[in-house]
Amino acid sequence: MNAFALKTALENVRATVPLVHNITNYVTVNDCANALLACGGSPIMSDEPGDVADITSICGGLVINIGTLNARSIEAMHVAGKRAAELGHVIVLDPVGAGASALRTQTASELLDELPVTVIRGNMSEVKALVGASNTTRGVDVNPDDAVTDANLAQSAAYARQLAEKTGAIVAITGAIDIVADAKRAFAIRNGHPIMGKMTGSGCMLTCIVAAYAVANPDARLEAVAAAVAGEGLAGQVAQARMTPADGNGTFRTYLLDAIYNMTGEQLEKGAIVEEL
Amino acid sequence: MNAFALKTALENVRATVPLVHNITNYVTVNDCANALLACGGSPIMSDEPGDVADITSICGGLVINIGTLNARSIEAMHVAGKRAAELGHVIVLDPVGAGASALRTQTASELLDELPVTVIRGNMSEVKALVGASNTTRGVDVNPDDAVTDANLAQSAAYARQLAEKTGAIVAITGAIDIVADAKRAFAIRNGHPIMGKMTGSGCMLTCIVAAYAVANPDARLEAVAAAVAGEGLAGQVAQARMTPADGNGTFRTYLLDAIYNMTGEQLEKGAIVEEL
Amino acid sequence: MNAFALKTALENVRATVPLVHNITNYVTVNDCANALLACGGSPIMSDEPGDVADITSICGGLVINIGTLNARSIEAMHVAGKRAAELGHVIVLDPVGAGASALRTQTASELLDELPVTVIRGNMSEVKALVGASNTTRGVDVNPDDAVTDANLAQSAAYARQLAEKTGAIVAITGAIDIVADAKRAFAIRNGHPIMGKMTGSGCMLTCIVAAYAVANPDARLEAVAAAVAGEGLAGQVAQARMTPADGNGTFRTYLLDAIYNMTGEQLEKGAIVEEL
Repeated sequence: MNAFALKTALENVRATVPLVHNITNYVTVNDCANALLACGGSPIMSDEPGDVADITSICGGLVINIGTLNARSIEAMHVAGKRAAELGHVIVLDPVGAGASALRTQTASELLDELPVTVIRGNMSEVKALVGASNTTRGVDVNPDDAVTDANLAQSAAYARQLAEKTGAIVAITGAIDIVADAKRAFAIRNGHPIMGKMTGSGCMLTCIVAAYAVANPDARLEAVAAAVAGEGLAGQVAQARMTPADGNGTFRTYLLDAIYNMTGEQLEKGAIVEEL
Repeated sequence: MNAFALKTALENVRATVPLVHNITNYVTVNDCANALLACGGSPIMSDEPGDVADITSICGGLVINIGTLNARSIEAMHVAGKRAAELGHVIVLDPVGAGASALRTQTASELLDELPVTVIRGNMSEVKALVGASNTTRGVDVNPDDAVTDANLAQSAAYARQLAEKTGAIVAITGAIDIVADAKRAFAIRNGHPIMGKMTGSGCMLTCIVAAYAVANPDARLEAVAAAVAGEGLAGQVAQARMTPADGNGTFRTYLLDAIYNMTGEQLEKGAIVEEL
Repeated sequence: MNAFALKTALENVRATVPLVHNITNYVTVNDCANALLACGGSPIMSDEPGDVADITSICGGLVINIGTLNARSIEAMHVAGKRAAELGHVIVLDPVGAGASALRTQTASELLDELPVTVIRGNMSEVKALVGASNTTRGVDVNPDDAVTDANLAQSAAYARQLAEKTGAIVAITGAIDIVADAKRAFAIRNGHPIMGKMTGSGCMLTCIVAAYAVANPDARLEAVAAAVAGEGLAGQVAQARMTPADGNGTFRTYLLDAIYNMTGEQLEKGAIVEEL
């Protein structure tokens, strides 16, 4: 990734403080807001159909996360998405639980059909559900059979590229090994720590951070998404390294935000483990 | 509790990672998700009537918490409950604020009439409201007049047994002294610390943990619920013991999750103060 | 502020444990509940139109925060507000994002027209929107052009007084310099730390604390609101002073609650920087 420095992506976020409108689940929404503030962006939440067009208009990006979707918020996703599309805003979709219920799979698919989504950020089970390859999502977590490993890395990247081709979006699949791909290029990212799966919200937080990075880096979005993914993984490593034996997922959650907050461009550049496939 | 070791209950949760569907309030939902992860389970949240039947089908247990109930979520509680009942899943009801409003009392009562609830987890004011003994709930907290003490322990256990007989459920009443009872047996549990009442959500978290324990221990549910209750109380003691003078309910909240996360079977067995009444 | 000691305001909260009903946003609701507990109050949340009249009846105060308003919660705001008004309860309005969307501006204005609001707590952009002076809110954050500074302090206090005259409410505008005013008197408060703007919810938490202070101090509400505002700012300073270089907005959030929890009347009296204008 010589052509575009990861640190530039981070510094562009801090310099421009992108305002991101989030229609997201109520489980991790507080972490999402604090993650956006920590990375250098600014959050606003609204999911009322009569409110979202105004709100999204004053933002630079829109996050749609279907983690606790309902009839009202689905309508708001379409209304906000349509306005964001008209305005040329970044749109990031987090298809939480696609494959786990008919409503989630259908909602994510309809949003992808209707909107010019910029980035899809999910786990491999969700991505497979969206390309029609399986419907084995285990709730909101990846099905263990779908874990990205060195052994299936090429096949996993192929799923990412397939969804990118089908939708025109950048696809970010996170797991033990993360994949960031568009229809032409793909990166494998090996930052992160298993404890990130023991707190709720690390994926949702990343989705919001990805939006901030995509807004702040319009000319290098694929690299910016890779920077966001590597940065959150690196923050997870930093947070885990601070833990003492009495600490658990409560302290980890706090330290993860701290690490995102204090991340510098140099630190990201030095710690990111990004490989072009 | 010689016949069944508390540590077995804990270890069965960690070994089987029960997936629990939660229809719960938006105040403490994040703590609920992290508490489930900390104890060894896995959470999924969904409260849209059109989504909950699919979601609950892939889980082992269902938590219904009426803390911020609304017309939509009440419908979802009935839909999900019916499906969970058909599938023989564990159903845990947390009747938050029963007795404090007509809608809450009525919703909890209707759910109990309609569903084969496995466990009811509440405070004494809520339990009294459900057996028709009073309606003196002080908001979502127990009415001071309803506190379980050594002086009224036998009477308090009688309320628990009465609700257990009426509903067929195990009843867990938490307070300074906790009571866990079915129609035949009752335990008093003396773990915990008063600061647990100074953070929001310790009760809601316990409800979710109880669900994980009940799912993972189908052959010893009464003992498993006692283990969950003693375990959270013990975690509260561990968390409180870590606090320094500058710490308050913010740090306590973090340490409580940490203590649940790090709890071992041996620690629970040694620290639990459980007495059969 | 010699006539009424700030410490008395704090001690009255701790002595009476005011129960506050909150109709608030799902982003910061957990922090709101924990902030109420930390300051010495007690929280209950309910936003279902069929539930709120009962719930607000058992409380001493009502917080209406429009941060994630929707059609259902707006109806609940009116129902609860009407009942709270009938009962002579304290009503505190947080007009989050007024000026940022037509629905938010309209909802806040209608609530102010209809209800005898006791306190309005917002930022300067929101206050300007409500007096019709501008609509330049930048999402949920203050527009940088609207920051209260020494240079525009008199003009800023004039906006506060203007809204107080128009509505009959006490107006608390928070920012780098806070202003608390009714139609006759105004205070400037210089506590706080810029990092408070890097966590979500410090404003929402303050709104809830203001409600507890207003309920507990019926005979000196203007001074009580000033005490609440100075107290949260001072807590922010205490929290920031505890931070180490690895800490960020995650740890700050935890320490802020801790500092509110441990705040004493003497500490508040000594640390508050309150000036009558």
